[in-house]
Amino acid sequence: MKHKGAWPPFFKLIAMSTIDVAFSPAIFERYHIDGKIVVVVDILRATSVICTMFQNGVKEIIPVRDIAEAKEYKNKGYLVVAERNGQKLDFADFGNSPFYFTPEVIAGKTVVYSTTNGTNAITIGKSAQEVIIASFLNISAIQSYLQSRANDVLIMCAGWKGKFCLEDALFAGAMSQNLIHSGKFETICDSTNAAIDLWNVARNDLNRYIEKVAQRHRLKKLGLDDVIDYCLTPDLTDVIPVLNNDRLVSLL
Amino acid sequence: MKHKGAWPPFFKLIAMSTIDVAFSPAIFERYHIDGKIVVVVDILRATSVICTMFQNGVKEIIPVRDIAEAKEYKNKGYLVVAERNGQKLDFADFGNSPFYFTPEVIAGKTVVYSTTNGTNAITIGKSAQEVIIASFLNISAIQSYLQSRANDVLIMCAGWKGKFCLEDALFAGAMSQNLIHSGKFETICDSTNAAIDLWNVARNDLNRYIEKVAQRHRLKKLGLDDVIDYCLTPDLTDVIPVLNNDRLVSLL
Repeated sequence: MKHKGAWPPFFKLIAMSTIDVAFSPAIFERYHIDGKIVVVVDILRATSVICTMFQNGVKEIIPVRDIAEAKEYKNKGYLVVAERNGQKLDFADFGNSPFYFTPEVIAGKTVVYSTTNGTNAITIGKSAQEVIIASFLNISAIQSYLQSRANDVLIMCAGWKGKFCLEDALFAGAMSQNLIHSGKFETICDSTNAAIDLWNVARNDLNRYIEKVAQRHRLKKLGLDDVIDYCLTPDLTDVIPVLNNDRLVSLL
Repeated sequence: MKHKGAWPPFFKLIAMSTIDVAFSPAIFERYHIDGKIVVVVDILRATSVICTMFQNGVKEIIPVRDIAEAKEYKNKGYLVVAERNGQKLDFADFGNSPFYFTPEVIAGKTVVYSTTNGTNAITIGKSAQEVIIASFLNISAIQSYLQSRANDVLIMCAGWKGKFCLEDALFAGAMSQNLIHSGKFETICDSTNAAIDLWNVARNDLNRYIEKVAQRHRLKKLGLDDVIDYCLTPDLTDVIPVLNNDRLVSLL
């Protein structure tokens, strides 16, 4: 499968790559992204859902930012997954739980997808040469992929309505620490160092730590917190979703 | 001294106040600020410098965002303190080290002040009903002041060019933890919880922790890192700088 991969400059083949973290899309534009791979993260729940869909055979996902655009796709006969503030939108076929997307429901299909934060982050990231989708579910696959390339990396946390989100920061810390330990990446970015420190506070008892996360409370209030354990489980899949001509497809 | 203080609604007099943290001015607009006291923080170095100036008797400080505006003030005969990327601007009287501002230099004077991040944060904060200036140098005074009011609090970290900064986050964590321990404040804000966790990672060996902070390296490169120990010292002063009609004045 062909995708618009960003080739690193020659000197990067022998030098260390850098790893930066943008804690929310509101900060993303402050970063230089030339030649970087942008890794979009929305642990609860968009990027966990996207990984699940590809694991279960979805053909492609069209991320759309606006509700009106999602509605237009629905009128054209597309399968539409759309939520705002955690809740399924009336016109949509499905809300945003990964448990809906069994192979029977989505294998071979094109899905239109619009969420409060995650799809916004993906569309903002479009200006980068290469955008990939990460979650705990595919963390090792993403790390191996990034190590196999020699590009600098910017992890973009989807956050919550432009604000910082703990669960996305924890993931950014876990992945940054692993990449730095691989010996191929380094950082002088304060957000990356903060994310790593937060991950090391949380990692030994992640389920307890996640109790204080605001998004956990939002989901619990809506009766949608059954997804949390699942979304924190590492390596359930080795899919690598990438943005290709405004659609997410699987690299493998 | 009169200033445009925000009075809390009646129910706040018996309820807990909230404490949120915006990790950079780029995120500030995502927060509701009605009735909140906005606490601006730029540890290295703007808010530490401002506290030093008031401790040493400055009459008032005019924070300006644009270099052109600072230059205009200079032409009108004002004492101008201005830097960008750490370095003093040619036309300015002083750069941004707190050590310049002895009583002999600034007592009784009006100072025009423009820096890379701090004054930008202050001018963005102007939309709030009340803006106060905090640093480690006046941390206990600010905490006592906030406890004596019953307003919700939003700590705005100045960051670095819109990005997250570790040293500002550490201060936000220290102050948030102290306010929550006072029993008058609570939080459900992910940034506040992250800042508290980072503070607890760093607090027992702050000088070692600060080694990894990007702004420390920037200042070191410029030979300006002699200020770091000073800027991390708690309670050198009990001044409470507040914004009043676009000028910073001392509340006490």
